[in-house]
Amino acid sequence: MTDDRQPSRILADFAELDHDRAERRGYPEAVYCEGKTPAQVGAIAAAVRDRGAPTLFTRAAADHAKAVLAEVPEAHYDQEARLLAWPAEPPERSGGPVVVVAAGTSDLPVAREALLTATYLGRACELVVDVGVAGLHRVLGRLDLLRRARVIVVVAGMDGALPSVVAGLVSAPVVAVPTSVGYGAAFGGIAPLLSMLNACSPGVAVVNIDNGYGGGHLAAQIAAVG
Amino acid sequence: MTDDRQPSRILADFAELDHDRAERRGYPEAVYCEGKTPAQVGAIAAAVRDRGAPTLFTRAAADHAKAVLAEVPEAHYDQEARLLAWPAEPPERSGGPVVVVAAGTSDLPVAREALLTATYLGRACELVVDVGVAGLHRVLGRLDLLRRARVIVVVAGMDGALPSVVAGLVSAPVVAVPTSVGYGAAFGGIAPLLSMLNACSPGVAVVNIDNGYGGGHLAAQIAAVG
Amino acid sequence: MTDDRQPSRILADFAELDHDRAERRGYPEAVYCEGKTPAQVGAIAAAVRDRGAPTLFTRAAADHAKAVLAEVPEAHYDQEARLLAWPAEPPERSGGPVVVVAAGTSDLPVAREALLTATYLGRACELVVDVGVAGLHRVLGRLDLLRRARVIVVVAGMDGALPSVVAGLVSAPVVAVPTSVGYGAAFGGIAPLLSMLNACSPGVAVVNIDNGYGGGHLAAQIAAVG
Amino acid sequence: MTDDRQPSRILADFAELDHDRAERRGYPEAVYCEGKTPAQVGAIAAAVRDRGAPTLFTRAAADHAKAVLAEVPEAHYDQEARLLAWPAEPPERSGGPVVVVAAGTSDLPVAREALLTATYLGRACELVVDVGVAGLHRVLGRLDLLRRARVIVVVAGMDGALPSVVAGLVSAPVVAVPTSVGYGAAFGGIAPLLSMLNACSPGVAVVNIDNGYGGGHLAAQIAAVG
Amino acid sequence: MTDDRQPSRILADFAELDHDRAERRGYPEAVYCEGKTPAQVGAIAAAVRDRGAPTLFTRAAADHAKAVLAEVPEAHYDQEARLLAWPAEPPERSGGPVVVVAAGTSDLPVAREALLTATYLGRACELVVDVGVAGLHRVLGRLDLLRRARVIVVVAGMDGALPSVVAGLVSAPVVAVPTSVGYGAAFGGIAPLLSMLNACSPGVAVVNIDNGYGGGHLAAQIAAVG
Amino acid sequence: MTDDRQPSRILADFAELDHDRAERRGYPEAVYCEGKTPAQVGAIAAAVRDRGAPTLFTRAAADHAKAVLAEVPEAHYDQEARLLAWPAEPPERSGGPVVVVAAGTSDLPVAREALLTATYLGRACELVVDVGVAGLHRVLGRLDLLRRARVIVVVAGMDGALPSVVAGLVSAPVVAVPTSVGYGAAFGGIAPLLSMLNACSPGVAVVNIDNGYGGGHLAAQIAAVG
Amino acid sequence: MTDDRQPSRILADFAELDHDRAERRGYPEAVYCEGKTPAQVGAIAAAVRDRGAPTLFTRAAADHAKAVLAEVPEAHYDQEARLLAWPAEPPERSGGPVVVVAAGTSDLPVAREALLTATYLGRACELVVDVGVAGLHRVLGRLDLLRRARVIVVVAGMDGALPSVVAGLVSAPVVAVPTSVGYGAAFGGIAPLLSMLNACSPGVAVVNIDNGYGGGHLAAQIAAVG
Amino acid sequence: MTDDRQPSRILADFAELDHDRAERRGYPEAVYCEGKTPAQVGAIAAAVRDRGAPTLFTRAAADHAKAVLAEVPEAHYDQEARLLAWPAEPPERSGGPVVVVAAGTSDLPVAREALLTATYLGRACELVVDVGVAGLHRVLGRLDLLRRARVIVVVAGMDGALPSVVAGLVSAPVVAVPTSVGYGAAFGGIAPLLSMLNACSPGVAVVNIDNGYGGGHLAAQIAAVG
Repeated sequence: MTDDRQPSRILADFAELDHDRAERRGYPEAVYCEGKTPAQVGAIAAAVRDRGAPTLFTRAAADHAKAVLAEVPEAHYDQEARLLAWPAEPPERSGGPVVVVAAGTSDLPVAREALLTATYLGRACELVVDVGVAGLHRVLGRLDLLRRARVIVVVAGMDGALPSVVAGLVSAPVVAVPTSVGYGAAFGGIAPLLSMLNACSPGVAVVNIDNGYGGGHLAAQIAAVG
Repeated sequence: MTDDRQPSRILADFAELDHDRAERRGYPEAVYCEGKTPAQVGAIAAAVRDRGAPTLFTRAAADHAKAVLAEVPEAHYDQEARLLAWPAEPPERSGGPVVVVAAGTSDLPVAREALLTATYLGRACELVVDVGVAGLHRVLGRLDLLRRARVIVVVAGMDGALPSVVAGLVSAPVVAVPTSVGYGAAFGGIAPLLSMLNACSPGVAVVNIDNGYGGGHLAAQIAAVG
Repeated sequence: MTDDRQPSRILADFAELDHDRAERRGYPEAVYCEGKTPAQVGAIAAAVRDRGAPTLFTRAAADHAKAVLAEVPEAHYDQEARLLAWPAEPPERSGGPVVVVAAGTSDLPVAREALLTATYLGRACELVVDVGVAGLHRVLGRLDLLRRARVIVVVAGMDGALPSVVAGLVSAPVVAVPTSVGYGAAFGGIAPLLSMLNACSPGVAVVNIDNGYGGGHLAAQIAAVG
Repeated sequence: MTDDRQPSRILADFAELDHDRAERRGYPEAVYCEGKTPAQVGAIAAAVRDRGAPTLFTRAAADHAKAVLAEVPEAHYDQEARLLAWPAEPPERSGGPVVVVAAGTSDLPVAREALLTATYLGRACELVVDVGVAGLHRVLGRLDLLRRARVIVVVAGMDGALPSVVAGLVSAPVVAVPTSVGYGAAFGGIAPLLSMLNACSPGVAVVNIDNGYGGGHLAAQIAAVG
Repeated sequence: MTDDRQPSRILADFAELDHDRAERRGYPEAVYCEGKTPAQVGAIAAAVRDRGAPTLFTRAAADHAKAVLAEVPEAHYDQEARLLAWPAEPPERSGGPVVVVAAGTSDLPVAREALLTATYLGRACELVVDVGVAGLHRVLGRLDLLRRARVIVVVAGMDGALPSVVAGLVSAPVVAVPTSVGYGAAFGGIAPLLSMLNACSPGVAVVNIDNGYGGGHLAAQIAAVG
Repeated sequence: MTDDRQPSRILADFAELDHDRAERRGYPEAVYCEGKTPAQVGAIAAAVRDRGAPTLFTRAAADHAKAVLAEVPEAHYDQEARLLAWPAEPPERSGGPVVVVAAGTSDLPVAREALLTATYLGRACELVVDVGVAGLHRVLGRLDLLRRARVIVVVAGMDGALPSVVAGLVSAPVVAVPTSVGYGAAFGGIAPLLSMLNACSPGVAVVNIDNGYGGGHLAAQIAAVG
Repeated sequence: MTDDRQPSRILADFAELDHDRAERRGYPEAVYCEGKTPAQVGAIAAAVRDRGAPTLFTRAAADHAKAVLAEVPEAHYDQEARLLAWPAEPPERSGGPVVVVAAGTSDLPVAREALLTATYLGRACELVVDVGVAGLHRVLGRLDLLRRARVIVVVAGMDGALPSVVAGLVSAPVVAVPTSVGYGAAFGGIAPLLSMLNACSPGVAVVNIDNGYGGGHLAAQIAAVG
Repeated sequence: MTDDRQPSRILADFAELDHDRAERRGYPEAVYCEGKTPAQVGAIAAAVRDRGAPTLFTRAAADHAKAVLAEVPEAHYDQEARLLAWPAEPPERSGGPVVVVAAGTSDLPVAREALLTATYLGRACELVVDVGVAGLHRVLGRLDLLRRARVIVVVAGMDGALPSVVAGLVSAPVVAVPTSVGYGAAFGGIAPLLSMLNACSPGVAVVNIDNGYGGGHLAAQIAAVG
């Protein structure tokens, strides 16, 4: 007697969407898709649509995206960032400018998740790629842009040295997002995480490994007043 | 000359089911399925049926379930909790009430394993979902229910902060089950495990990561006298 | 032939004070005293005085303080925060308000280091103490104050759960400073550090363990535009 | 200009004693002394006396004890457990019996902290010492006592194997307190902590390393209804 | 221009079989198959056959076994232990008796690897299964057998408590083999490994996690003189 | 509305190849393929070809190789080392001789990556295999070759003891490359990494786990002047 | 009211000396002094003397030794090994020869603890010092001695490579004792511990870090039949 | 009967100075003083003098230095580097130039140990201090010097980012020495160690934490041919 109906029966209860909190905090709510089934995510999307609250779906794999788009076809899905946004149109821009810097090409998906999150929270954003510390001239070549930012999100794996270098060059705060890019003694992001927590320069705010959403959200809050 | 008969030949010996212990302790015996082949689990199910001892099969994947149900078709299989119970009917309820709290949707499978385990050990149980610390009003909204419980099982991943918050609000003991929900510096459940071991509020009993069975069993023992 | 003159002979070279950087970034320079001898710190203080650049001396033990005060007697020394500031008078206040929250009494020295740092970077600051998650009513009782802040610094050891709770209640960013307060599986601050990196609520910026200076500096940068 | 008055000036604010919480939860409040100065602890003792709320002072070194006894001379100080109780007389006994087991002589201070805590929360307690798994006959020789308990607190360092063995022999829950007793790969209590979290027998509730207070408190809550 | 001939061209050089060492030490040589291709293992088998030196192939998956049996069809393959032995017939028995104990059913593959290794090194061996510490009566029920052994190999995962218990009951040395059986805070075998290194009873020799071959080899050396 | 064009649209920007750096440093540039899509790697290969700069593609799986060879068919692909070199012909040999030593057969892919990297940086290289410390006579049998080297690259997993032994026998520096070969407490290369960092003999230069490219590059730089 | 009599009052109960176990196992009992007060150790010594059971006191600091010698002046105290033996005269020699090898001078205290333990368990022992892998000729120069041993205890810190090398040269089992000698990434003995667990040569039995007593005891059991 | 003569009696045997190895390798032998008593170190100094072999004494505290200087008064002692050299005069300079870079003032003792070691191995050395990545202009201001070096030793704690930056600017190899400078999540040097192992730039050779001797020795070997 296999009872495989439990998951669906429980579905009604399982996600008391926290619209109050979103409203209270003034930013769109986020639904973390990893570890949820497409069916669960689809059901949440339907509820979101019915209530009309702006929502981001993060870590959305292709099948999550399909389930959400079936309910809210007008949502925007960014495949690389694995992010769905509903509504597709970001809010009007306010606050100060955000610059997102990716140390290497492999850091791009996380950087893009940060960029889009800050965009959907209402900030004007710019992306700079492939400016690792191994080629300082590339960092220095973007100094003007970096110094105009209200906050800079630096996304880096391996030695995680870039936030320290950038924070030494500007007076704005730096949000550091370690990535699991690298191998061996990078230990899935521990090496850059520790580097960033021990940055020589003050002004470095660290978030979780590969947490582009968190980095972008924090940056948007910091730049809320520009 | 490949001798692939060893596993089956050894089968007769390999699981001296500890009915004495179950009897001595007064609770159903449990068979941990992970790492056993479906054939091994099926053979145990047959032995269980022949002896007539109530038994739980934990961490039972679909193929384990199939093998057990082939021997004891009247067993109950909960797909989400990956738990099989034989007999399907829980014992008469005794002791005090158990409340199981899941911090997030992704913690549901573990929470459900705890809930069913306590149920099959004879307790009356209630499940509360999606009450993470990021939305305190939801925790506070369930305070009456929480304060009526003889013991509360709190299942949480990520920052694992919920047991500390709940234990500060009630006088009953809290069984804290960390989950591997989260990513990056959650390190497969280490982050919530450490949070729970360091809970600011006394009265938090910690079990292993993702160990819904252990959490439910412990809760049932605590609530044996209600 | 013991040559114990090396340390002093090298003294001339050993600290190329980075006044340019301070000027470039617009904040006082900081001298980290731990691991330096009082004599070295005293020599730096003399150089600081000669150039007239505002400077903070962090992690200054009593003998460091004595050496600095011998050179710049008008500096201010806060014994609990182990911080020396020269000049003693903070700059005129600008930007938005900073609130510093200490979860427990033992977190006070680190909280105070954050408070003074932000103060000497020009922010108006307020301190709230002993509002750990084990007594939620105390957090909730300060909600008005918390919601008026441009940024909140939360200093906590043990389970490190407070930043998650606070960030869920406000729209401002939260700077989380884990402390080494606790024992056993707190592992010198690893438990709260991991909790904070895995906070359920977005908007939590983590700095190094016991790094009150870093937390205060980051907060001052965030609140520079209020 | 050294301002060493800060600590005392702040003293008025620094410990909003949570009498409400104590009352709400029905157990004496606890003051964790480690990391507080004797002067701070003494000031808290004075406040405690003025309000008349039963209080435990844990991890109280000799100088903490002296400061407390200066304010409330009628308090009881147990030097080995580093615990002060005020009032000295435990409340009337209620609930079920608690048995505290220490695996080795070196585990005694932690075991005694658990024993006294449970006693001051109103339980009848008994202490059994030196019954490590290396000499099973000693465990087995106490089986009758163990089986009469409503809950058993097992305090063990090194391999931490005793809770698993005890939990396999009784139907009551076991509170396992790992200690930092041992050396080398015991890693300050990590080895027994992990053993206990992975106990083969269900029914083992783990608390923090060396946390005798936490273990005793949890046991008292479990045995509240006997 | 893809040069995929390198692996095969290098094949001639890649394994200078150490027959001298085998001869010098007096035991069969072992070939560790994991991380080698079936083709590489097959080529080694051919070389082994040509030289006529008794050899064990450990961690041999099905395709490794197929490749070896193609060269030396008269070899013996034990599927559960993933061990191939050539020649299939163990040497004449010498030395003292070896007893291999598996704590749980899931530890059987590793236990069997130990058993077969010791057998192929010339010892008389006996296997005891499912005698974990959660059911002490089963350990005690085998005491006679355990006390007759020259050396006991104890294979256990999870809390790894069994070697400590067994070593306290006998005067022979115990070889402890931790397994990766378990989940969560078992950390792939770290928990039982640490338990065993910190065993309360002296006389416990620890080998690597899941290293049944190493455990059996060591036992055979210890029991060489019985 | 799924926008799957982002990745390609961004492609133009995503890899500002650092030819300047390569020129400045005098060695071919390297493209790390792991974590990049074949399409991304192919686009880089096209850019490389257009600029005419010698380039190595490391960690190139079969599909990466296919994409590169489609653009630059005359490149050389070594399947075992997962390395692509363009142009296929190494530069003229200069500097001193490099010897690469692999402790075991399973270390060969990493050793070969080191060998080819040093070759494409212009050094004369020789490979020695299967000379682990368990058979010292094999190390000693190659002493002449080892002592003629300007630098020795030692690639080893498991106990990582070989670099210490080799460094004790020669006056040239030893580059130690730990590999993830081994299991259990080898922890994916941590065991040999720590051994090498703690080598008893001075003169051991450690690089990241499995980093054959890094080891070969460092060796080529050391042997640049022979 | 400070009750400082508890420790002494409890003294009668606190150490049920396990003479039965000693008798059952046939070896002297051991009292681990670290973490016990001199008074406690002295009381145990008096009990030991009264019962007449041969006993070793391990990790005995100078004040422990003084307390023991006050009770049993005829005991033998080895200051370097921190070991007290009573009676001072070892039992008659039996079994096979034990060789103890110390890799470096700093490993001597642990090596000596092993040597004396095996001696007091009745074995003939020999000590070899300063034969680390950095100077292979010294290991090779003692090959005759090593090959005559029934078991070899190898004590080593830093890279812990020596047991692997020795085990490759002999057919006897090797007991490996990692020491906390070294710094930085030796992590208090973790580096050599991991090396030894991952030894390339079979036949290596690992005990806890700095556990000379455990290593010597195990060796004596192995060599009981020579 | 306390036998405190063992240490001295054993003294004759305990350090078979490996002059052969020194001669074979062509560099002075080193005596690691930490963990040795002053008396032991003094005895070694006497032996060194009698044989006339150039020797370095590393990690020599003041009392070690006193004991050595009593035997060889003409030795040179550098207090900051804790290094003694005998003879005091370095050998004639040969090979290429070595530059030692210290990221911060607190890294000076380790940097100086590296500098002196390379000097006593015969290299011409230069020291650059306080050039951390937080102030890039200071690194760039020394570019000419850095590019003239045959090898650069970079000593850094905290984020350990400097070696990556330096290696990206030069073609010479970089020897990276992580230091235990920093606090909290620097974990005694683990953070910079991991950064360095994961350096974005190839050409970084890592040695143990705080191992200035090892870094200087390796640099001298690399620069032996300039």
